[in-house]
Amino acid sequence: MDAPPLPDAGPPRFDHAFCAQLQDLLIWRRDVRHFRPDPVPSALAEELLDIVQLAPSVGNSQPWRFVQLESASARHSVRASFARCNADALAGYDGERAKRYASLKLSGLDRAPLQWTVFCDEATEQGHGLGRLTMPQTLAWSVVGAIHVLWLAARARGLGLGWVSILDPAEVSGALDVPPAWHFVAHLCIGWPDEEEATPELERQGWQARTSLGRSVLIR
Amino acid sequence: MDAPPLPDAGPPRFDHAFCAQLQDLLIWRRDVRHFRPDPVPSALAEELLDIVQLAPSVGNSQPWRFVQLESASARHSVRASFARCNADALAGYDGERAKRYASLKLSGLDRAPLQWTVFCDEATEQGHGLGRLTMPQTLAWSVVGAIHVLWLAARARGLGLGWVSILDPAEVSGALDVPPAWHFVAHLCIGWPDEEEATPELERQGWQARTSLGRSVLIR
Repeated sequence: MDAPPLPDAGPPRFDHAFCAQLQDLLIWRRDVRHFRPDPVPSALAEELLDIVQLAPSVGNSQPWRFVQLESASARHSVRASFARCNADALAGYDGERAKRYASLKLSGLDRAPLQWTVFCDEATEQGHGLGRLTMPQTLAWSVVGAIHVLWLAARARGLGLGWVSILDPAEVSGALDVPPAWHFVAHLCIGWPDEEEATPELERQGWQARTSLGRSVLIR
Repeated sequence: MDAPPLPDAGPPRFDHAFCAQLQDLLIWRRDVRHFRPDPVPSALAEELLDIVQLAPSVGNSQPWRFVQLESASARHSVRASFARCNADALAGYDGERAKRYASLKLSGLDRAPLQWTVFCDEATEQGHGLGRLTMPQTLAWSVVGAIHVLWLAARARGLGLGWVSILDPAEVSGALDVPPAWHFVAHLCIGWPDEEEATPELERQGWQARTSLGRSVLIR
């Protein structure tokens, strides 16, 4: 149940073939919203949670906390929050953009067999505050890194993951009755993808293509 | 110079051997603070920046922005901010904890040959606001995911990366003269590691070991 044991030997060499495969994994990571209904074996879910413990965290604080949504009522409350927030978001777009927004499938909440709501424990004393005096948000950022680890590990096993952020954090936290110090970070839909595409759905649907804007570097 | 081309074929199968290697990569990712002075070839730095574009981002917004610190004055200003913030942090610990804090090497700023300060462009229109109406912080979180992609890609190529957060965001942003909408996320020290350990330095130095706290899951 604990994190995987650490090896004593020196670091492995990651060769060109591995680097190419890692790049394929990053390309095929995708944010998945279309799932087959087949369940995710619980042993596989456990394996993913073990791997998450290898994520970087500020001061080694490991502040990620998971809620697994199994009851119909818990799932319903998240879907209801999404429906409200998504309607509000749609109301903020006009004309062609609104039509496009309405046509996007943004949640996957209806079918994803495994659903984890992820929180940051803002009250954790683990790490003794190291590294976050000037930047307290690094605690939540550690949870974001953990989700990225989960995303890659899931994809390497053939699972798709969708990160749902069109939700009201207070509403979801209340409905799931988590400790007050747990701050909502993400709702994750996980399952076997119903479609497999290397190009992001938002790009295929004409919402937003990748650009080279993020590629520019200032020199100082 | 753009992101790597995307394949048209179906998704690759990632086998057990790849999953095991990916786990090794996660184990050996480490936050590195001890570097050899040897330079990082610019072609390798460019390669890393291309791979970063594959990171997930809310609404496909790609809000990450990089500043490469080449001048002595830019590097000095970051080191000076670290020195001040680190002294403040030390003052917050007592007794044995303070002694331990003082003994930790927390920056790597003195030797890392490649230094990137990473920002989030809060004014970007890319992505048309999708997914961040209720959670505007998902924009900065996209930058955190990009840094994790960079971390893994660097490590797979033998490079170590240290994420320095003991800095004053306003001070660093001002010293580097970036656009006002760019919000500081992280200062990254990158280079060839001077030591290689699978166990985090904070654990080896008795600051904070990994625990199984992050492994517990609530059921709802």
